[in-house]
Formats: sequence, C-alpha cells, structure tokens
Amino acid sequence: MGPSSRFTDLVGTALPLIQAPMIGPKPELARAASAAGALGSLGCASMTADQVRAEAAAIRAVTDGPFNLNFFAHKPAPEDAARAQAWQARLAPYYADLGLDPAAPIAVTNRAPFDEAMCAVVEEVRPRVVSFHFGLPDPALLRRVKAAGAVVLSSATTVAEAVWLEDNGADAVIAQGAEAGGHRGMFLTDDPARQVGTFALVPQVADAVRVPVIAAGGIADGRGIAAAFALGADAVQIGTAFLLTAEAGLSPVYKAALKGAASDATALTNVFTGRPARGILNRLMREEGPLSLRAPAFPTAAPPLGPLKAAAEARGSGDFTALWSGQAGPLAREMATADLIAALVEETRAATKRLTA
Amino acid sequence: MGPSSRFTDLVGTALPLIQAPMIGPKPELARAASAAGALGSLGCASMTADQVRAEAAAIRAVTDGPFNLNFFAHKPAPEDAARAQAWQARLAPYYADLGLDPAAPIAVTNRAPFDEAMCAVVEEVRPRVVSFHFGLPDPALLRRVKAAGAVVLSSATTVAEAVWLEDNGADAVIAQGAEAGGHRGMFLTDDPARQVGTFALVPQVADAVRVPVIAAGGIADGRGIAAAFALGADAVQIGTAFLLTAEAGLSPVYKAALKGAASDATALTNVFTGRPARGILNRLMREEGPLSLRAPAFPTAAPPLGPLKAAAEARGSGDFTALWSGQAGPLAREMATADLIAALVEETRAATKRLTA
Repeated sequence: MGPSSRFTDLVGTALPLIQAPMIGPKPELARAASAAGALGSLGCASMTADQVRAEAAAIRAVTDGPFNLNFFAHKPAPEDAARAQAWQARLAPYYADLGLDPAAPIAVTNRAPFDEAMCAVVEEVRPRVVSFHFGLPDPALLRRVKAAGAVVLSSATTVAEAVWLEDNGADAVIAQGAEAGGHRGMFLTDDPARQVGTFALVPQVADAVRVPVIAAGGIADGRGIAAAFALGADAVQIGTAFLLTAEAGLSPVYKAALKGAASDATALTNVFTGRPARGILNRLMREEGPLSLRAPAFPTAAPPLGPLKAAAEARGSGDFTALWSGQAGPLAREMATADLIAALVEETRAATKRLTA
Repeated sequence: MGPSSRFTDLVGTALPLIQAPMIGPKPELARAASAAGALGSLGCASMTADQVRAEAAAIRAVTDGPFNLNFFAHKPAPEDAARAQAWQARLAPYYADLGLDPAAPIAVTNRAPFDEAMCAVVEEVRPRVVSFHFGLPDPALLRRVKAAGAVVLSSATTVAEAVWLEDNGADAVIAQGAEAGGHRGMFLTDDPARQVGTFALVPQVADAVRVPVIAAGGIADGRGIAAAFALGADAVQIGTAFLLTAEAGLSPVYKAALKGAASDATALTNVFTGRPARGILNRLMREEGPLSLRAPAFPTAAPPLGPLKAAAEARGSGDFTALWSGQAGPLAREMATADLIAALVEETRAATKRLTA
C-alpha cells in the first residue's frame, strides 16, 4: 500500500498507517492496530508510568509488531490563581444545574508534559516509536529517547513547524491538517484561525522537509489514503475513523454523538483543556466558545470540568464531554479494528486503480 | 486526465478543470483558460451587463471552447443605517491616517445579486455554463437560465448544502473546502467555525449526491488534482494557483502579498464585504477581525473601504485590500496560463503514475 516505503522502512510496520494516539478510546485499540500491521499508538499523556508499562506489555503479549508511545511536550504555563478562579466562577451555574458542590475537591490534571520519569519508562520499555504533540521535549530528554532506539515523530500544523521539527531531531513529520480531531499540535503559532487544511498542508510540507511525511486530518477511508499519497505523503495517521471500532470501547455518550454528527458538526475549541482542539459542538462549546478568552492555560481548564462531565454523562448527556472528532467523523464505521484496517488497504487499492482506469 | 468523464461530458471541455471565477484577476485569464481546454470563468458579480456581453464576446473571439459566467445569488440584507454609520465611524481613524475626507461621497457597491437584467444577458449570450455562489437564484430565474441551455453549477460548503443544490436544480456541485480563497459559498449555515476542509468534504459530498462533484480549495498542482480525483471528485476548480499568471494581471500590491505569503498566512474574514472569505492577513484583518461583529451585512461593508484601499495601494500598501487567497497560495507559479494548464495535466499524470509504481 502506498508509493513509498520510507515510512515502513523507518518504523518497521507492514503498513504505512498510524492509528493515531488518542485519550478517549481504550488501549485495546492500539493492540489490535499493531497486530493488524499498522502502528498502534498509546496516548500516554494521561497515564501513569505503571500504566504505560502495563499497556506496552499488553501490546507485546499479542504482537511482535512495533508500537508508538505518545506524549505531550508542552511547556507548563505558570499558575494563574485569578484566572482559575474566574473559570470556576464561570462554571458555577453548571455545577448548580447538576446539583454539584463547587467547593468539593477536584482531581488535579493528569496531562503532564514528558519528563524525566516518563523518559525512564521509555528507556525501560524501548518502544520502536515515540511521538510527541506540541513540539518536542528538551534536547537532553530527546537524546535519551533516541539513544533508547526510538524513532521520533511529531506533528506540524504549518510549514514552519515541519521545518523546525526536522531541524530539531524528528525522524518523520506528521502534517496535521485542520480537519483532524483532538488537539492541534501547534507550537510555533497560537492562532487557530490560521490553521491549514490537509489538502494545502501536505504538499507544502512534503516540499519543505527531507524526512518522511505522514498526512493526518480528514482521512477515514481508502479514498483519503490514496489522496494523501497523491499529495506527497509517505504514510497516513488516522484517528477518528477508529473510534467506532469494537476495541475502542467508546463511552455511550461519545459514541452516540459521533454516530449522529454531520459533516460540519465540529469546531476548534479551547474550552475543555485551554488549547485548541477539534470536537463535536456541544453545550459548553456553544455557550462559552467554541474559542473562549476565559479558558485558562492548558491543561488547567480541564479539572473543574471533570465533575460536570461525570454528572452529565450519568444522565446520558455529553454537554460537558470533550467529544473529540475530526471532520470525517461521519465516515467512521462500526467494525473490528482488524477488519477496518483490511478494508482500508483494499479501498486504497481500489481508489488507486480507479485513478488509472 | 481524471478517472471520470462525467464533468467533461456535461460542460463540453477537454479537461475536468475549472478556472475559478474571481474578481481580482483580469478577464484575459478566463479567455486563456478556455482556450487551453479548461472551463474559463468570468466573475460577473462586479460587472455591468455591457461588460459581461463584451467579455463573453472576447472569449469567443479567441476560442470555441465553453466558458462560465459566475454570479452571486445572495438575498440582499435590509438596509441598516445605524450599522453602516458605526462601520464608517470605526474606519474614520484610517481615513484620517491616509488624509481622506470621510464625508466625501462613496461609490455604492456593485456586488449585486443575479437579477432579471443579468438573466436577460445570459439568455442573450447563452454561455455553456452559469455558476452561482451563495446558493441559487429564485426558481423562475433559474428556469430561464436552464432554458437558455446553460449547465448550472453552485458551491456547497457542507453535505447539507450539496444535497440542497442537487434537489434545487444544480447540474453539478462544487465541494468548496475551507482551504479555498475568496468568499465561502455558504448559504444554509452562517458559522465559519464549522466550515469543512477539502479532504473531509469531497468524499462526503460524493457519497451524498448523484450529480458530478467538483473539488475546490487548496488545489494548486497535479498532486492536488490527483488527490481530488482519489477522493471521488469528477473535476477540480482552481483559483489562487492562476493568480500569478501573466493573464491575471494582478495589481503589484496583491502580487507581492501572494508571493510573500507563508502556508498559514490566510484566515477567514468578513471585514471586507460582510461575508466570510479567505484572504492573506493584513492590517484591517488584524485590527478589526479577522471575524468582526461590527462589519455590516454583505456587501455593504465594502464601499467605505474603497477610498482606503485606493489610497493605501497608491503608497504600495495592501493594508485595506482584500487579498483573497487559498491556503495553497505558496504553490502558485508565475507562468502563462496555457503553460500552467499544460503543467497541471502533466503533473496529474505523474502523480497518478507514482501512486501505482
């Protein structure tokens, strides 16, 4: 599958296909994806070190195939008590609506940046691939990741970010088009209004860097994979299209939202974490966003939403849930991960064949 | 070129390629595009009836090939004197900066919706294709356009708009991805935050309608054309990539901005006309937008900007010029239109061949 072996040579997978790291789905998805010849990915930013060890072992129990541990590489923002308080005040009416005590203690955020402790886990686990979001970690940590034998990937949302990643040690660059679900990987720009669509981004990134290019954003079937290859990508990263697989085990609220979404159901929002991310429009996004000037810095917007999310979901509502989805969400299919991957391979072949008919 | 003859059969061109209607470039561009086997398009929304007659005759003087007359199909907003006054007050400091008299009379806008008079011109000129932006005109006018033998196209920015256009008489639908330069064709939605990228829009539109689908937005070379075909498009519409051709005769200010633009230089803005459109970020967009709650309804935001644009351009500045551009602007090339079209055909062949290598 695909016109180039640059990506598969680099990471050792059978297919030029990454199952995108995500925090919503269960880790069973990564196991199934790696076992089916793709690069399965674990979203480790919300895991403890022990969880990362356990999930990596669980992948190795089912396949010898390579897998990817994904971490966030943001610089934590300085604490801002006034802003945090204002955010809690903004959310107070929702707490009241749902009968929650706004004074009850709130779990602190678990979206920590990649650090010394996680680097030690990487050195111990020795995954074939480590990918980062929001740039790259400090050079000393990055050197240790590479010394542990990992291929390093990161996401670019502009040509300038792609060039920076190549210059700073990424072995391949993910060109993350604006269609993509979840957090924008942006790290040299902070203006969501200027984010570039996959169609325009991929060829410009392919022209600008020498490392392999992985297209991401809006790809959900073999038509999209063939199109990404035509634009100059060596591989594709697919997230949303895997969300309805059996292995993803999505929550009922999230699953229902995804199945009911139209092509224009999503928007970029910062209300859930403080950073722009694409999700299905829901009550919080409509009433406070989708882009809010009040949302505190990443990831501190998230903790006070935890109780609201739990209480609303218990009532069958996704009003306060981050329903991350790309713009090709309506193309997602309910099937087993292995079957979906087999279908993607066959569809890509068919789409390519149609082009030359 | 391309896996389907559905578009070329419908409009009678040699190539499944529309040179997008635009108001910036000179009409020589449409002549050259039609003569080279594409569907040349005239942006008639800013022309008088006599100009449309003259330009159509000028195309016919150089080629027997089909061409496209493009019109706006918006419903004019009711007059709002308070809002217009507030807009002029907002712009007053710029008038002062440039030494302009804010009390001097201003030319009224010429972006009129398609009407009785223009319909009579269509019946007289009998172009092979008429395309509309912002939906379709009243059914009685549309019937007359079709009775005059014209194939009717219009742009969809969502799946719902594509289905509506098919149901209401469009013979083919342009799936206008968010990467596209100039005005969003949106007419059933008014939320620019939910606009869909080409990669996600084209396959979903292709699944939803039976008429031919034309992909638009972010397409600037053969890689993009092959990718659009892979996604399910029957043809492509390309605008920005033609802006640096000799025939487009772009103003020096506009040309310099386009040549200096980065991949993320553009944003959707309503400050120039009142409707969301993609252009290169400049002073007015930065200081009042890019999306402004103050900009009056389309097209009444535009007239008071005319004197500012003219005065700034006379000083070599594009501070107040609508520098429409798609996100693939950096891929635009300075060459003759016929050479560019020949290059696009050859590149599409090469990109397709690479896919099957």
